[in-house]
Amino acid sequence: MAQNLFISIILLKIWPSCTLFFKSDPLKIDEASGQYMYDEKGQAYLDCINNVCHVGHCHPTVVEAGCKQMHKLNTNSRFLHDNLVMLAQRLVETMPPSLCMVYFVNSGSEANDLALRLARHHTKGSEIITLERAYHGHVLSLIDLSTYKLNHITDGMHTKPDFVHIAECPDTYRGKYRDTDYPMKQLADLYVGSVNDIIGKIHAADKQVSCFIAESMQSCGGQILYPEGYLSKVFKSVRAAGAVNIADEVQVGFGRVGTHMWSFDAQGCLPDIVTIGKPMGNGHPIAAVVTTREIAASFSACGIEYFNTYGGNPVSCAIGLAVLDVIKNDKLMENALKVGKVMDAKLNELKSSHQLVGDVRGVGMFWGLDLVKDRTSREPATDEAAYVVKRAKENHVLLSRDGPHDNVIKFKAPMCFSVENAETLVEKLDLIFTEIAEGKMPQHSECKVANGKTYRRGAAPEWPKDLSLVLTQEKQTKVEKKNTRFN
Amino acid sequence: MAQNLFISIILLKIWPSCTLFFKSDPLKIDEASGQYMYDEKGQAYLDCINNVCHVGHCHPTVVEAGCKQMHKLNTNSRFLHDNLVMLAQRLVETMPPSLCMVYFVNSGSEANDLALRLARHHTKGSEIITLERAYHGHVLSLIDLSTYKLNHITDGMHTKPDFVHIAECPDTYRGKYRDTDYPMKQLADLYVGSVNDIIGKIHAADKQVSCFIAESMQSCGGQILYPEGYLSKVFKSVRAAGAVNIADEVQVGFGRVGTHMWSFDAQGCLPDIVTIGKPMGNGHPIAAVVTTREIAASFSACGIEYFNTYGGNPVSCAIGLAVLDVIKNDKLMENALKVGKVMDAKLNELKSSHQLVGDVRGVGMFWGLDLVKDRTSREPATDEAAYVVKRAKENHVLLSRDGPHDNVIKFKAPMCFSVENAETLVEKLDLIFTEIAEGKMPQHSECKVANGKTYRRGAAPEWPKDLSLVLTQEKQTKVEKKNTRFN
Repeated sequence: MAQNLFISIILLKIWPSCTLFFKSDPLKIDEASGQYMYDEKGQAYLDCINNVCHVGHCHPTVVEAGCKQMHKLNTNSRFLHDNLVMLAQRLVETMPPSLCMVYFVNSGSEANDLALRLARHHTKGSEIITLERAYHGHVLSLIDLSTYKLNHITDGMHTKPDFVHIAECPDTYRGKYRDTDYPMKQLADLYVGSVNDIIGKIHAADKQVSCFIAESMQSCGGQILYPEGYLSKVFKSVRAAGAVNIADEVQVGFGRVGTHMWSFDAQGCLPDIVTIGKPMGNGHPIAAVVTTREIAASFSACGIEYFNTYGGNPVSCAIGLAVLDVIKNDKLMENALKVGKVMDAKLNELKSSHQLVGDVRGVGMFWGLDLVKDRTSREPATDEAAYVVKRAKENHVLLSRDGPHDNVIKFKAPMCFSVENAETLVEKLDLIFTEIAEGKMPQHSECKVANGKTYRRGAAPEWPKDLSLVLTQEKQTKVEKKNTRFN
Repeated sequence: MAQNLFISIILLKIWPSCTLFFKSDPLKIDEASGQYMYDEKGQAYLDCINNVCHVGHCHPTVVEAGCKQMHKLNTNSRFLHDNLVMLAQRLVETMPPSLCMVYFVNSGSEANDLALRLARHHTKGSEIITLERAYHGHVLSLIDLSTYKLNHITDGMHTKPDFVHIAECPDTYRGKYRDTDYPMKQLADLYVGSVNDIIGKIHAADKQVSCFIAESMQSCGGQILYPEGYLSKVFKSVRAAGAVNIADEVQVGFGRVGTHMWSFDAQGCLPDIVTIGKPMGNGHPIAAVVTTREIAASFSACGIEYFNTYGGNPVSCAIGLAVLDVIKNDKLMENALKVGKVMDAKLNELKSSHQLVGDVRGVGMFWGLDLVKDRTSREPATDEAAYVVKRAKENHVLLSRDGPHDNVIKFKAPMCFSVENAETLVEKLDLIFTEIAEGKMPQHSECKVANGKTYRRGAAPEWPKDLSLVLTQEKQTKVEKKNTRFN
């Protein structure tokens, strides 16, 4: 009890810019296993959002591999080690043949930053094309091209550099070109046109494109699946302009789509550089860049060597190898396909019965529910989405929301999520959507709007506490204690 | 045997820009314990260079803590967890009281990049002052201000941005102002003057300084200890200019100096932002930024939240806590002091007996030997340094060399390095220096010079193999096999 209080106090002091889930009433998770997380009272939560602990929390094969190697050797990467070589080899085997060179790093941010360096030295181009709503990482070079973050900076100290060019987000439900206005076949071309226009402008300014960078499916941008043919057509245009294509698979890779290991592959695309991360270590910090022989040669020829202290260390690589083993041995891609089919059917049933659900989109273990106040105007149901996430948590189901209006319910569960879990999730959603339809959602003032955007999660309205759950009541008490003691 | 061959072949394909130690004849390390590393034949090497496995390779307390937590929970940092809070608290306790806010990240590069963001949002300044020879990390924003890397890029695709200003490296032995020309007391002021000049020029251009960033002792730059008073005077000037000071303790922190936990503290300085990394996880990827309440508030107010997927995850923090425990319980700072005194005496004895040793500098577990061809001209003995490192390895002692001329022998051993180990090291060095003095070092052509700089390690001359060691002979055979089979 004292400890939880201690944490609340300290967190205020220590980590003011950290994004916690359920910030107004954060969860203290003590243990986790498979698709379940357990709080300090031992109460289970169904985890529908953890795309990091990819093969299941604390998977014994992964834990065992990491611990075994930790006992033996965990040095920096200045020495030869079998694990590094084997993991590189195994990763290359999952990729198209041209993608055969691997650099190991510690995070998706480090991977995408390195990808930009590779592209720059290979093409000698300076200009970068990225998508609206993109998020590629938290370091300076990536905030530059991540409007998901950049658009919210209000102090004017970090603005889009001139060399970054933002193409329309190919969101056929809520983007510039919509399925209501154009036949689906035409939508891909319209969004490709946005990229082509940028290339034209860059060339007109006598500059050269370095790269196009995009997630193979956009995650933070609102669980966006691109219209058929979009990505391969963009890749073709970009390559024709002498630039390279970077497929960011940090959030969406490692079999999440079910049919393929990589989402770009599922779309029949061949990138020049692939960045991979989050799921790769099942929670352990490891990521990588995979590229072609030619691009790696250009980078080698630039004059400096790349060195990453921890990147590719024996423990990280042992864990990476174990994750690949588990994906195969536990048949997790097959599971993603199976669960994906159930999600598709059940979520579309929800859409039939609830006007709140404007759009259902997804594949395998990657789904989004775009909640709307009105199906014709598609006005985002931001407050309703906040309520859904809060009520789901109270029902011991962990969900999150995202997209430019924070109205898209995100599903990106560990890959061991079962058909029964999917059924539970949909049942809970059905109940919560019914509550909303019946006017049981508490009324409150609108979210404040800054710079034409709704505030991010941190500023979401505080919902009244639901006292029906022991856990919540317990926490409420603690908050009161805190006030008594420290005010 | 086949495996080693396999590794050699694959590494050529997989990781062309990676810096291996002993590139021409790399070591395959299989196990490590304390200050010893073991190759695949079980032969021991005394590790004098690993500043990552700080408290000793595979320290049981650290391994145990990591494994225990891996079995329980290793999720991203979206939830409360005791480990995160406790580690933040413990780190803050080692810092001056004003440095009380902690951000957890995965690497020194991520830490320094975040430090630049904090400085920019807090000061609203755009200009950065860094030191000649600096190395602060491998991401784009840090290569920008790391001439250690930047000066070697030959394809023109990464040049110093205008907002980066480079002050003279305060190296009193080999820098612009030397101990031969000025009394030691004056040297600090002369080097501070270089920073003041830059501040003056920035102000004259009507721009504002954001930060000064420097390692508290320069590591890759050649094991440089700053003249007394230098750092605190620079900090004063920078603060007077409305900017903040970033102390990069990634390589030199966590008690390495012996007297203090942090090298800035040993120099009586108070930075505004401190970045810490490498030793923090004893090989596990964890790093952090520690700053003041005011700077953290400015960052919070900039409009976006900081989120780092793995940063501060329960396993990383369990390991970080264990490292702090071991530093205390194993009395590693006391050990650094004790070994440091022996190193001081013994290395200076070496200097007395070998003209090759131009300068001995260091403290605690951080030492540099600046090798010279001539003590008056101080011409760098680059080839001799390469020979020393190679011969030391053949004598099962792992050393490295660095500095702008690659002529500085670096010592930065795990903190459990003993007085006996120090004596062994110095004995071996004595023997190798004697070989060189007696003309036993093989002759060869000079290192190639590009852009007025000697090439980095990768292009060092290939020394003839010493066949006296079974290990080396073994590897030689493998190389021949490779040639037979694959050419």
